Amino acid sequence: MSSANDNVVVSDVSSLAENALQPILYSYWRSSCSWRVRIALNLKEIPYDIKPISLIKSGGEQHCNEYREVNPMEQVPALQIDGHTLVESLAIMHYLEETRPQRPLLPQDVLKRAKVREICEVIASGVQPLQNLIVLIHVGEEKKKEWAQHWITRGFRAIEKLLSTSAGKFCVGDEITLADCCLVPQVFNARRFHVDLRPYPIILRIDRELEGHPAFRAAHPSNQPDCPPEAAK
Amino acid sequence: MSSANDNVVVSDVSSLAENALQPILYSYWRSSCSWRVRIALNLKEIPYDIKPISLIKSGGEQHCNEYREVNPMEQVPALQIDGHTLVESLAIMHYLEETRPQRPLLPQDVLKRAKVREICEVIASGVQPLQNLIVLIHVGEEKKKEWAQHWITRGFRAIEKLLSTSAGKFCVGDEITLADCCLVPQVFNARRFHVDLRPYPIILRIDRELEGHPAFRAAHPSNQPDCPPEAAK
Repeated sequence: MSSANDNVVVSDVSSLAENALQPILYSYWRSSCSWRVRIALNLKEIPYDIKPISLIKSGGEQHCNEYREVNPMEQVPALQIDGHTLVESLAIMHYLEETRPQRPLLPQDVLKRAKVREICEVIASGVQPLQNLIVLIHVGEEKKKEWAQHWITRGFRAIEKLLSTSAGKFCVGDEITLADCCLVPQVFNARRFHVDLRPYPIILRIDRELEGHPAFRAAHPSNQPDCPPEAAK
Repeated sequence: MSSANDNVVVSDVSSLAENALQPILYSYWRSSCSWRVRIALNLKEIPYDIKPISLIKSGGEQHCNEYREVNPMEQVPALQIDGHTLVESLAIMHYLEETRPQRPLLPQDVLKRAKVREICEVIASGVQPLQNLIVLIHVGEEKKKEWAQHWITRGFRAIEKLLSTSAGKFCVGDEITLADCCLVPQVFNARRFHVDLRPYPIILRIDRELEGHPAFRAAHPSNQPDCPPEAAK
């Protein structure tokens, strides 16, 4: 038994964190990638302010010059924390994990960590990018529902299979991990596109399990400051 | 100064590794995701066998029943290692990093680690999934070149901007990291789709820097056992 990553250095971040302003999350209420990070921040009980970026107003506020300086990919989320701006939800969540070890979101065991990251990557690389707003605009109004359903279904088939060997109460074992932070928002998207979820009983069970969890509930689109009144619960 | 991830546990993996068979990488010569993992394995000097999976023969060998048991996403790479099968290139590379700390591919500093992961995720979530073979089949022959160019250009604009603050000799500082393992194969894909790379001088410089590196050269598509003779250098 040995320990990897002993050498990760949290340079002057801790001192920065104590003195710095509260983190600011650039977020859109319905963005599943923003939602992942909101869940992680909530689980770790890190207070943060939300700066809403509307992906639809004026052709998308993420494309304005000011925001392009925050995130050159012109998408949400971005997190200002410890005096730095971070982009890409999985990079942000790993940073939170490495700087705020309270309430770990990765297991200690390296194999379980790999299983968590497999599920995260299937969603973050294999599903979400193919059904996000900017891609669907390119696919066109007529075909977009069928397109989104195709890629979500393909991903969910694989995730259900991965979960059949990894899941306990949650995606990997009995503790909430980054995989759960990615899964719940993706299930919401699947429902938006009317994907038939009956073939995925493990996904559905985990989603139901987490539905009422305070950290997940607070991160839900309907509880965001930029959620339009007609969509709020 | 404190240390994160002290608690990562390499359960019985080390003992397994000593006794186990050499890792087997399911790979396709031109797959950029397989290529990332080949570079990481080479850099860490981990001997491995390649099991070629043709993405074009008989409609794609990745869709056959036998391989679906290996990777339910029906794509390459997959790595059999330490008695387990792992999928998703970034999950695999993190596993290698956490079990084989020789020749680290993540910096020690948490902020630099975040910068590495940002670049990895821009490529793995924001570029590659939108220009891979299976998506281009759905886009159709007529539109596929323009489609691929659009998404690669969007990603490279962002990566060049990120590199403008993170790069030294390589993507993040002066050491080769996971970001470089992702960048080089993506540059190859950009060239395949005739993307104009002149606006990205930092990307081009790093790609040139790594061109002759033995670990990168051995991982190149043209040096794979399944590279067709007409494509070999």
